[in-house]
Amino acid sequence: MIYIVKKTQRSSYQFEQIGVIHSCYRQKFGIPRQPGIVSAAEAELELLSPFNQENVVRGLEGFSHIWVHFIFHETMDEGWRPTIRPPRLGGRQRMGVFATRSTHRPNPMGMSVVELNGITSGNGKLILQLGAVDLLDGTPVIDIKPYLPYADALPEARGGFAPLPGIMTEVRFAEHAKELCRQYEKKTGRALIRLIEQVLGQDPRPAYLKETVERRHGTALWDVNVVWESVGDYFIVTDLESL
Amino acid sequence: MIYIVKKTQRSSYQFEQIGVIHSCYRQKFGIPRQPGIVSAAEAELELLSPFNQENVVRGLEGFSHIWVHFIFHETMDEGWRPTIRPPRLGGRQRMGVFATRSTHRPNPMGMSVVELNGITSGNGKLILQLGAVDLLDGTPVIDIKPYLPYADALPEARGGFAPLPGIMTEVRFAEHAKELCRQYEKKTGRALIRLIEQVLGQDPRPAYLKETVERRHGTALWDVNVVWESVGDYFIVTDLESL
Repeated sequence: MIYIVKKTQRSSYQFEQIGVIHSCYRQKFGIPRQPGIVSAAEAELELLSPFNQENVVRGLEGFSHIWVHFIFHETMDEGWRPTIRPPRLGGRQRMGVFATRSTHRPNPMGMSVVELNGITSGNGKLILQLGAVDLLDGTPVIDIKPYLPYADALPEARGGFAPLPGIMTEVRFAEHAKELCRQYEKKTGRALIRLIEQVLGQDPRPAYLKETVERRHGTALWDVNVVWESVGDYFIVTDLESL
Repeated sequence: MIYIVKKTQRSSYQFEQIGVIHSCYRQKFGIPRQPGIVSAAEAELELLSPFNQENVVRGLEGFSHIWVHFIFHETMDEGWRPTIRPPRLGGRQRMGVFATRSTHRPNPMGMSVVELNGITSGNGKLILQLGAVDLLDGTPVIDIKPYLPYADALPEARGGFAPLPGIMTEVRFAEHAKELCRQYEKKTGRALIRLIEQVLGQDPRPAYLKETVERRHGTALWDVNVVWESVGDYFIVTDLESL
């Protein structure tokens, strides 16, 4: 920790990365805005040396959920903005940055509450097995805290707009693509088919592409590029490409 | 934001203070471990330049509660410890630092959910009026986020030990001290008597002093030192001293 007193009377603090997220999301395109929809998006939090010692998480297995504090590393070089147009409000209304969870904050830190499914260690690695996350692969982690329901759970709090129930689009697979998925699942143990159904099902296309049909889309999940297109009222996965 | 890639493969991030807490707590001694007991401990969060513009909190008034992210500035020079003996567990059991909310973390950041009672601005100042906090006066703030009940409230989460219902000790006032309190309340508009009753009532003495009687204690609240002693089964406030 370095503590710097500056002329402005404000202080600065140097924070160190303690871990990294391994997730299926290789690009912002595809990450659901509505947490919990993509239950197949399980992830890992790897603690980095010198924090990869079992001591530091002793007792954490007694908690069903944890807070993960992380850096918005993909957007942090873009700096902060005093006001934001949250996508949830249709992009029409401006809100102060501190009234949103936007990534464009003065200090680009985010927090997510995630399920803790287990802790594994071995070969010098210490890994927290997480439930569904909405975090990019490679996200730097700066803190982990237990979720304390008696302090953190305020169901009666007011404010915010709960996400509308999502309309899921049906996802079909061309026979060749389905076979590639099955081979991938066998090789990696990852539930790729379910993940594709959930990620594509909530329609990850940006607004300006929503109406297009018979256009080839690519969505990167884990180390494959999922090739798909919209065919009227359903999507069809036509191929898998290695990344 | 400065982004430093280091040889260890871990990254560092420089965070800037955005605000400061003004509270009645001038010393750790006296801050309740059980949030919510001292409802009279209302506080203010002052945003510092260039964040003292109303724009940055536009829409925040629609939320009943906010997350305040802050620095454990009083203990951060002591560094971090892999394991902690949480006072809540009687100080006998060791827990990993990431399984606690301890101040002795690798990155000394804390978070509290607090009630937002209002936002005031004028004379170049932008101030959030907060409900009861357990934060030291002068605590540096690094982020503010809205509390989103649909994402943050998980009453069914497991883990942690809810604080036992506190046994409150009766607090009496010597006539002279009561008169000084009344004068202070009239001058400042602060509910000092109620604050003293709540802070002393939960017995802020460290464990090794719990059994002492007829010993003079001092507890700093706002800009006064409250002088009191334990007289058998109640406490008596004997004097107020200016700080």
